[in-house]
Amino acid sequence: MRALFLEGKRAEILDVPGPEPQPEMAIVRVELAGICNTDLELVKGYMGFRGILGHEFVGVVEDGPEPWRGVRVVGEINFACGRCEYCARGLGRHCPQRRVMGIQNADGSFAEWVSVPLQNLHAIPDTLSNEAAVFVEPLAAAFEILEQVDVAPGLDCVVLGDGKLGLLVAQVLQVAGARVLAVGRHPEKLAILSGRGLETRLASDWSPEPTSLVVEATGSAEGFELAVQATRPRGTLVLKSTVAGHAEVDLAPLVIHEIQVVGSRCGPFAPALEALARNHVDVQPLIFDRVGLKQADQGLSLATQPGALKVLIEP
Amino acid sequence: MRALFLEGKRAEILDVPGPEPQPEMAIVRVELAGICNTDLELVKGYMGFRGILGHEFVGVVEDGPEPWRGVRVVGEINFACGRCEYCARGLGRHCPQRRVMGIQNADGSFAEWVSVPLQNLHAIPDTLSNEAAVFVEPLAAAFEILEQVDVAPGLDCVVLGDGKLGLLVAQVLQVAGARVLAVGRHPEKLAILSGRGLETRLASDWSPEPTSLVVEATGSAEGFELAVQATRPRGTLVLKSTVAGHAEVDLAPLVIHEIQVVGSRCGPFAPALEALARNHVDVQPLIFDRVGLKQADQGLSLATQPGALKVLIEP
Repeated sequence: MRALFLEGKRAEILDVPGPEPQPEMAIVRVELAGICNTDLELVKGYMGFRGILGHEFVGVVEDGPEPWRGVRVVGEINFACGRCEYCARGLGRHCPQRRVMGIQNADGSFAEWVSVPLQNLHAIPDTLSNEAAVFVEPLAAAFEILEQVDVAPGLDCVVLGDGKLGLLVAQVLQVAGARVLAVGRHPEKLAILSGRGLETRLASDWSPEPTSLVVEATGSAEGFELAVQATRPRGTLVLKSTVAGHAEVDLAPLVIHEIQVVGSRCGPFAPALEALARNHVDVQPLIFDRVGLKQADQGLSLATQPGALKVLIEP
Repeated sequence: MRALFLEGKRAEILDVPGPEPQPEMAIVRVELAGICNTDLELVKGYMGFRGILGHEFVGVVEDGPEPWRGVRVVGEINFACGRCEYCARGLGRHCPQRRVMGIQNADGSFAEWVSVPLQNLHAIPDTLSNEAAVFVEPLAAAFEILEQVDVAPGLDCVVLGDGKLGLLVAQVLQVAGARVLAVGRHPEKLAILSGRGLETRLASDWSPEPTSLVVEATGSAEGFELAVQATRPRGTLVLKSTVAGHAEVDLAPLVIHEIQVVGSRCGPFAPALEALARNHVDVQPLIFDRVGLKQADQGLSLATQPGALKVLIEP
């Protein structure tokens, strides 16, 4: 089958063997996949991954037990062992033995077919388009914040960063009832949020004010410093973006103001699916471009363009 | 009166005017004071403080309303405004208008007398010696962790750092029922803890293992990195020591493992007083030396010696 294969720092379209049927796994024919910033980091060498890229997808089960066959699905990306202490505690996303689709020891979704554990599958309602469903995985990452932090209605929040994740996080916090200010560098991206009634501010017009909940989604080391400055004493700072390598940071304000920093990664699919099905979150304006699988490598280049948002891949 | 006065980076014994009676303030005759690492940082220029140093003390109220006169007391160091939103929420220790004894806009306790808000005073039981009571303030900082983090009995904890604060934190976590491993560089300091039944390890014999709760009390940037490595996925890392200036840190593991970092500063006096009164915590072995107020500047030098623990000042 055709797939976007990463080896070293080179991602190229190759003809590779398709996935083989395995117990407890489904083979899903990919209908649509999405490029995430993590994919771009992987190409730079993050995680030292070798294999088929891609972890955002929607598709149809072609091989697997009867009830799943023909079902349109999305799939969670952490393939947990199901037997360890973390799995027993419901923390399969932190299973030390996990493989991660398109990131760690498991082939990904930038291909014609992808192999996914049955326990990771979520059927999607007919009313949900592929263009919406392909956002379930990143939207789940935004919903993870609500699993970790108590977001009371009316809570004052600042979301730093108007990239794909920042735009999803801001909407999720709004759905939770928070008073959200989204800060970013791209008027056209912030407009997506202001169109939904969120308050937005260009970073150049903003200076940090003490805020109860700050979400850092800029993907830069300076973003962390600004986020600390914007967090009120005893407030919470959620770290969503991984800044590759070491950053120069001043930790003293965390102690002086007793700030709580919460690292946040993958999240629960169920609330993300529900929010999309109920139209509580709008993802369509986040689609920047789409390419065929044959041009998936060009899709990666498109996704690195300034101002780019979600680039979709159609096998 | 005699006092250890800091101006610029020079701390010297001076004859200065004593505190004047003021409404809502008590004048306390200092009987014993303790040198904290923060004092040493202040002398290096931290906070740009100018005034009388010192924030750990025990003394007797000489001037104030009738019920307080003659009472032996310790005092909380954050002088809150009592009128702002933080004060209303019981977070006076984070009052933006606060003065802080011996640290920010308020004279400290390395003097014959010190002025303290009545609301900050805590009477101490007759059974408690001055040598124990002088540890209430730093011990309260250790108890702050229990205010911020749920420490269930049996929780596995690592305390990094066998300085004064680390030794107090390890004991407090033990009192809370946690399974504590204390890691440090000084066999003689760790022996204080092993004598009380705590597990200890020399840093050279230790490598980070995933732990539910890690307390960073080393006061070094490398301490933070080690602490992150020692924190299990979804675990908690309490930052107790302020590392002056910027440190090179890798924030990615916080996100990948969804670690929660909790900055922790001053704490509640009541549980600290109680723990000392009930002999739940042993502070006597932490006394390294004592000097007269006339030699308070030499006390600072003593406190910087390798292996030094608490240096007390007797006016």
